[in-house]
Amino acid sequence: MRQADQRPTIAILGAGLIGVGWAALFQHHGADVRVWDPESEALVALPARLKAPLAQLAQVAPDAGPAGRLTVCDTLAEAVAGAALIQENAPESIAVKHALYGEVEPLMDTDAILASSTSALTWSDLSPGLNDPARLITAHPFNPPHLVPLVEIYGPDDARVARAEAIYRFAGRVPVRLKKDATGHIANRLASALWREAVFMVQDGIADVEAIDAALVNGPGLRWSVLGAHMAYHLGGGAGGMEGYLAHLGPSQERRWAALGAPTLGEDVQAALVAGVAREAAGRDIAQLEAIRDAALIAALKARKEAPNV
Amino acid sequence: MRQADQRPTIAILGAGLIGVGWAALFQHHGADVRVWDPESEALVALPARLKAPLAQLAQVAPDAGPAGRLTVCDTLAEAVAGAALIQENAPESIAVKHALYGEVEPLMDTDAILASSTSALTWSDLSPGLNDPARLITAHPFNPPHLVPLVEIYGPDDARVARAEAIYRFAGRVPVRLKKDATGHIANRLASALWREAVFMVQDGIADVEAIDAALVNGPGLRWSVLGAHMAYHLGGGAGGMEGYLAHLGPSQERRWAALGAPTLGEDVQAALVAGVAREAAGRDIAQLEAIRDAALIAALKARKEAPNV
Repeated sequence: MRQADQRPTIAILGAGLIGVGWAALFQHHGADVRVWDPESEALVALPARLKAPLAQLAQVAPDAGPAGRLTVCDTLAEAVAGAALIQENAPESIAVKHALYGEVEPLMDTDAILASSTSALTWSDLSPGLNDPARLITAHPFNPPHLVPLVEIYGPDDARVARAEAIYRFAGRVPVRLKKDATGHIANRLASALWREAVFMVQDGIADVEAIDAALVNGPGLRWSVLGAHMAYHLGGGAGGMEGYLAHLGPSQERRWAALGAPTLGEDVQAALVAGVAREAAGRDIAQLEAIRDAALIAALKARKEAPNV
Repeated sequence: MRQADQRPTIAILGAGLIGVGWAALFQHHGADVRVWDPESEALVALPARLKAPLAQLAQVAPDAGPAGRLTVCDTLAEAVAGAALIQENAPESIAVKHALYGEVEPLMDTDAILASSTSALTWSDLSPGLNDPARLITAHPFNPPHLVPLVEIYGPDDARVARAEAIYRFAGRVPVRLKKDATGHIANRLASALWREAVFMVQDGIADVEAIDAALVNGPGLRWSVLGAHMAYHLGGGAGGMEGYLAHLGPSQERRWAALGAPTLGEDVQAALVAGVAREAAGRDIAQLEAIRDAALIAALKARKEAPNV
């Protein structure tokens, strides 16, 4: 059983898509959650918007124990006071986030963690202006944040990063640590590199959008859901593992890298991408596709077994 | 119920890892399978080597109906005669495959399909020398072929490609068609593009091997097991879908592509990769890791639901 004193107090700043996901996640796992948003409409809508992710979490993590308390806060001070972790989900603007941090820092506990969900910005972009930059970490979830386990973390203060990791693990997340900050963290760098080649194949006429997506989902994507890219080459090297792979096939891999494409998102390619996903969607709108995706993610998560990288 | 006349006759040429996977797959799904290998030792070992993949298939596809007949053939002629599909799994050498095709072509039915499992070579590499090049297709499975559903197909004869697709679907595969042949087909181009950035992040000191693999498996890899890369950007574009994504974030995606890395597999990087997978393996040898991978793949496949790209 979890003890009451193991329940962290979490401030969620910003009640958009990502903030709502975080709020549901932490509440489901028993944290004391306080949500603030500068737009009062977002706070009014919050209880209704929490219903779907909370219902999904009940399927994915039915053994999480009693849910925590969720407080909708009218003021930033009310949300931040006494919070161990302050998860910031403001728009992706350095100016907006800097202004917010200027308000948050005087209100937060000395050893609290200010964690930015930023996707596009880095710790180096965001830390200037803080009196104590060590208070800030980047902690990027992968959409949808209450279902996909990954949280990518960078911060210069090892003790704070370790405390943050413990809190994310409490909420069923898999924290992964960067050694230095990088645009796109880890996952979006991988996604961007893969999509570049996916777009190139459309541009070059190698395959249609729907063929590329079907190949990914039924091939490497499925395998990458249980096995990392490095580990896959370790197992692809026969008895020699990664060492054997690099010795025998390293040079051919370097040649293959050199032959990969560098597409540009010109009008023709954009039109092909839009038409391709429209064929895939087959009349299903975004909300319908998201619901199907979420049900499939929930089934995949419930089925998860020990795996080389799980 | 399947009718006996719906059961295709399949020749499997080469009883290595890939050939054994194909043989188990087609036998499990009720085909009449004939296996030939130039090495008699490989044929002697075949029954024992089929046991594990057949047991796995019984878990993944328990409703496949009665298994087919599997014949170990002493001669190429015995394997090929009357086969609708001849799945070639010879070593990745143009000369070896050309020599084999020279023997196969006179033995095969006029409208039979000669399908190469080649990973590294293309239809353009392999078709010269055939009297009727239209008989050849490339049909690349993704390892392990009896578990991962993808088969990537290229061939110039639409009617033959369509017949091949029907046969692969009969065996529970998801065939995906290329519009022109390309080194690495689709899936290994995607895998190669992703691994390039994964290696770059190790080389550049952004993250350790095990952090990158954990990020992939718990983030984009999980999502790509239900949702293709193109479709993911369609859902990431908000209500505007892919069109909105390209309009708002296309330029930043192009900048991100320009900032991705171009690593080289030098000694230091190789050492870091080998040490990294050794830490991940944590003492588990290749066979143990493969068994864990397969169990995880089987669990993921059994849990598969309708998804945008499944």
